[in-house]
Amino acid sequence: MSHPTPVGLIGFGYWGPNLARNFHAIPECDLAAICEANAHRLAKARALYRATRFYDNVEALLNSDIEAVAIATPARSHYPLARRALLANKHVFVEKPLAMSVAEAEELVELAEARGRVLMVGHVFEYNPAVRHIKTLLDKGVIGQPYYFYSTRVNLGRIQSDINALWSIAPHDISILIYLLGRMPVTVSARGARFLNGKVEDVVFLILTFPNGVLAHIHASWLDPSKVRRLTVVGSKKMIIYDDLAAEGKVKVYDKGVTRFTDPQYGEYQYRLHTGDIAIPKLPLLEPLRLETEDFIRAIQSGRAPLADGRNGLRVVRVLEAAQQSLEKEGALLSLGE
Amino acid sequence: MSHPTPVGLIGFGYWGPNLARNFHAIPECDLAAICEANAHRLAKARALYRATRFYDNVEALLNSDIEAVAIATPARSHYPLARRALLANKHVFVEKPLAMSVAEAEELVELAEARGRVLMVGHVFEYNPAVRHIKTLLDKGVIGQPYYFYSTRVNLGRIQSDINALWSIAPHDISILIYLLGRMPVTVSARGARFLNGKVEDVVFLILTFPNGVLAHIHASWLDPSKVRRLTVVGSKKMIIYDDLAAEGKVKVYDKGVTRFTDPQYGEYQYRLHTGDIAIPKLPLLEPLRLETEDFIRAIQSGRAPLADGRNGLRVVRVLEAAQQSLEKEGALLSLGE
Amino acid sequence: MSHPTPVGLIGFGYWGPNLARNFHAIPECDLAAICEANAHRLAKARALYRATRFYDNVEALLNSDIEAVAIATPARSHYPLARRALLANKHVFVEKPLAMSVAEAEELVELAEARGRVLMVGHVFEYNPAVRHIKTLLDKGVIGQPYYFYSTRVNLGRIQSDINALWSIAPHDISILIYLLGRMPVTVSARGARFLNGKVEDVVFLILTFPNGVLAHIHASWLDPSKVRRLTVVGSKKMIIYDDLAAEGKVKVYDKGVTRFTDPQYGEYQYRLHTGDIAIPKLPLLEPLRLETEDFIRAIQSGRAPLADGRNGLRVVRVLEAAQQSLEKEGALLSLGE
Amino acid sequence: MSHPTPVGLIGFGYWGPNLARNFHAIPECDLAAICEANAHRLAKARALYRATRFYDNVEALLNSDIEAVAIATPARSHYPLARRALLANKHVFVEKPLAMSVAEAEELVELAEARGRVLMVGHVFEYNPAVRHIKTLLDKGVIGQPYYFYSTRVNLGRIQSDINALWSIAPHDISILIYLLGRMPVTVSARGARFLNGKVEDVVFLILTFPNGVLAHIHASWLDPSKVRRLTVVGSKKMIIYDDLAAEGKVKVYDKGVTRFTDPQYGEYQYRLHTGDIAIPKLPLLEPLRLETEDFIRAIQSGRAPLADGRNGLRVVRVLEAAQQSLEKEGALLSLGE
Repeated sequence: MSHPTPVGLIGFGYWGPNLARNFHAIPECDLAAICEANAHRLAKARALYRATRFYDNVEALLNSDIEAVAIATPARSHYPLARRALLANKHVFVEKPLAMSVAEAEELVELAEARGRVLMVGHVFEYNPAVRHIKTLLDKGVIGQPYYFYSTRVNLGRIQSDINALWSIAPHDISILIYLLGRMPVTVSARGARFLNGKVEDVVFLILTFPNGVLAHIHASWLDPSKVRRLTVVGSKKMIIYDDLAAEGKVKVYDKGVTRFTDPQYGEYQYRLHTGDIAIPKLPLLEPLRLETEDFIRAIQSGRAPLADGRNGLRVVRVLEAAQQSLEKEGALLSLGE
Repeated sequence: MSHPTPVGLIGFGYWGPNLARNFHAIPECDLAAICEANAHRLAKARALYRATRFYDNVEALLNSDIEAVAIATPARSHYPLARRALLANKHVFVEKPLAMSVAEAEELVELAEARGRVLMVGHVFEYNPAVRHIKTLLDKGVIGQPYYFYSTRVNLGRIQSDINALWSIAPHDISILIYLLGRMPVTVSARGARFLNGKVEDVVFLILTFPNGVLAHIHASWLDPSKVRRLTVVGSKKMIIYDDLAAEGKVKVYDKGVTRFTDPQYGEYQYRLHTGDIAIPKLPLLEPLRLETEDFIRAIQSGRAPLADGRNGLRVVRVLEAAQQSLEKEGALLSLGE
Repeated sequence: MSHPTPVGLIGFGYWGPNLARNFHAIPECDLAAICEANAHRLAKARALYRATRFYDNVEALLNSDIEAVAIATPARSHYPLARRALLANKHVFVEKPLAMSVAEAEELVELAEARGRVLMVGHVFEYNPAVRHIKTLLDKGVIGQPYYFYSTRVNLGRIQSDINALWSIAPHDISILIYLLGRMPVTVSARGARFLNGKVEDVVFLILTFPNGVLAHIHASWLDPSKVRRLTVVGSKKMIIYDDLAAEGKVKVYDKGVTRFTDPQYGEYQYRLHTGDIAIPKLPLLEPLRLETEDFIRAIQSGRAPLADGRNGLRVVRVLEAAQQSLEKEGALLSLGE
Repeated sequence: MSHPTPVGLIGFGYWGPNLARNFHAIPECDLAAICEANAHRLAKARALYRATRFYDNVEALLNSDIEAVAIATPARSHYPLARRALLANKHVFVEKPLAMSVAEAEELVELAEARGRVLMVGHVFEYNPAVRHIKTLLDKGVIGQPYYFYSTRVNLGRIQSDINALWSIAPHDISILIYLLGRMPVTVSARGARFLNGKVEDVVFLILTFPNGVLAHIHASWLDPSKVRRLTVVGSKKMIIYDDLAAEGKVKVYDKGVTRFTDPQYGEYQYRLHTGDIAIPKLPLLEPLRLETEDFIRAIQSGRAPLADGRNGLRVVRVLEAAQQSLEKEGALLSLGE
């Protein structure tokens, strides 16, 4: 690797500092500049990264000699900022969601491809050792036929007033599900409710169906007494609970299932439950955000697409847009196209 | 109280033994007879209750000198058995659901009223000290305006092949919600999936809306790695988690909430979170089933309706029937009534 | 098996009803009589076991045609009652502890041997599937060299005023440890404190050493905010936590350990930690008390000694007596002799 | 406050970075220099704190223009380094334990007093909001008469080969207990075992008695399958569990207790248990280490002694030294003098 890639970070609010810390720590990367309009936050960035250049406007950052841009700003600004950065011939990493509509997301993907730039989205759970372990179990057939998934991602806080819980929280779950199953959902429906400001949903319940009758349910909320980050996978042979907050073992694999058989005496269907051991696999102690930011730098330097590339981000936006439409139609069941 | 009410129990399968144990223990009640078609189960009943009379057919039981009948048989037989018992002028306790349709349930309610018999349904959670404590907190306004409720009632087992998870599991949650809010829901929608036998849903997700924008979500499944019995109540001032399986304190009251205020500087809406103490109230150590069976006997002897009377059971069936229709229409949003 | 063994139960207080339920349920056993001096408790027994004969004095029971006696009375009466029963040529099951001194326990063992009667002690954890699984792991060398054990058996309640927490609670832990290691401890020391009545210790801390430097610590108390029933086993290769109150898997086997190696560079000892998977084995769903009572009946009918025989009970009393002496000498380290 | 106090940190290994981060963040403090003999660690320090001066030997650091020294080196070097720093007229913060003997600790205290320098020990739990809340409850008499305390501080890791688990881990518990009770213990006894290198105890069990019959038990180990940081306080009126790793509420206050009364009928002592609500107080979100380092700076600038001053550290060493002697005498009960 000839030289460290100079990266400029836009946004040093809630999530930006985490990106900064990781880009800073990667030897193949040079966190060359940080841009933040809020003076107080910019001062914080200065205190932490003394040698880096600092800007209070995006124009100046894009005019500097950086090769790549990481965008950690409010969701509605992802598209315009990513577009400007791509037009300035920068590689672009953008936090999830990639954009607020399929049209915007498609434009970004096409722009990146036309200009030969890396476009990557911060779907950090695809870099999470727990999620990757579950994918391995699914791919190897260990859990048998997947029946259904349900995910709960709730806590009190990070209340938004410009985007709802669907766009703010559920991108994680949608990206995890598409990643695990390796397929797009075929239908979407969503319900929610607006308790705080009457404009955006604080709570959203989302149901996706996938090919082969696989069902997935997502509960996203910023209005909850407890912090929960849990995904349950129910298969025909085994079941999995992935609790991201578990003190001891985030992934539990249950040797549990139900077998149908014909009762020899009555000729009726009967069910036999089996419940065996529970296994808590040791997962590698890797920080997902580190793997994610490394993948971005590697993609720039190698020319190979990152895992969470623009098309990946577009797929998630496609689901979000349909879910938003369903939400506005009080849970109408919408098909996700061809 | 002049004499103990002689009660006959129909059904000594999964739940019947619990009813038997409680009716047996109530001094004002005489568990006079048990009826069970299955010889093996009948033998079990005989071993436990030596002095009681035993029958293998309902006809014989109804012809005996009992005054009341408790029905703990498969759901589809609730209506015909309750009807026969009422026609035989018995007071009737029937396990939930009261019937498999509104028409059936209405007929039972009318029959009981016409004949002046007690009709009661086994909505046992309305007798649960934890649920009652939550109702007190709601009624006193302690949690402020109720925003939303969500309930998870899942585990591996008790798989049915004649009725789905909606009719088998969700009656509990529906009865709890109507009891807590003191009102019927205004809309219902339900989704589910059939993984095991292709005929009945093993998993159901149900959304109810109540007056004043209150939302409720129910997740019912017999196909899950963990046993969960949990209800979360989110209000404007406080939040509650009721975990029926908690080792130490089933009800937790969180002094948590979000207040909206106008930022004096920018004129924008802002949110202020408050998170205070958590209180785990000591609940009376009363067995809900004991309170329930006592309420039945008391209703017979006093002539006052029990808490979980026929009209109560009818309301739950009304929700179940609408939910079933929504389930068959892939989650269509259905209005509940006039 | 020609005929069910007629057993008489003495004591229907806290634990007696559990023994009654199990002896009643064993086909090879006939719960022929129950003796209880307290009229209220005797009435309870009558209500549950209608055909059995009932006595309010031991003399009458021993004169009846029973072959075996089960004693579930206060600890100080174990020895005199067991002695009387053996002298009356009955087989004897006695709750733990077998007696309140080594001399008493030895006399009972000798008496039983001289008369060819079964003498058994209610060390129920030796029949517990979790404890048996741990023993298998120890015996197979799976955990490597055992380093140390510690057990916590505390809760609020079952406060005694005639015997201390050592004699009331710790017999379980002592019996488990001797069973798991297959050896007697070589030294004992005990400390405790009397908070409630000033006469008996409410809290006891006990340290046992076993051959090969194995250490064991027991904390027994009836004065604690939480109920805890937990044993930790630390070995050179693996570690185990047995939590008898765990909702999901009582035994956890941790693939964790520390290896010492010589640093090639500095020639110093270094430690390498390994932490691998955690396994939660499925244990058979057997009630320990059922296995225990069955073992008693089988021993009577087969002539083969039960697992928890009199010599087993004597070993536990030997440790208790030494611990009591240490307690009275403020923790003096006492040798347990050959 | 005229100028920020220039502080030099000695040791950038396990704990030093935490001190550095906090001293760096305090406006009244200037983290002026870091000294670390290990080149690799020193490079880490350089990467994090670019403007600070860096040294690889203590001599150079002490000759620089710092006013205070913070020592975060292996325990056996605390005394010689603190002594050198005091002789160089620096204020001294030293990690726990203050020294490895009472004689050493006394010399440091006297030296600091003679030279008018602040001497402070890193007993960080005395700055912990949870511990402070418990002290308030004790001081106000909320828990009634304190009966006993027990603390478990175990996990796998931080294995030492030069000092044992007593000196490495137990200083925290000893400092907490003396702080909570406001008194020195009157007796000490300790047992332990050496499994790994045969030279230092990996596991230690410590019993302290305090005036008025208060008992305390400490279990310290670096050889355990689980990480546990838990203190239980049992009082006559209430009980407390402080679990430093609890996800939701570190302190639980149990309204539980036992009252002795004389049975009017039999004239015997009886016990009445009461179990009421559990309260989980909201604790201030303050980092104990921040409060601790601030107290050091404030003490230097104000001339008022810090909470965890040298005499405080000496008291803990006094208990440790006696415990060490007891350990060497296999648990002998030692008095702690006047």
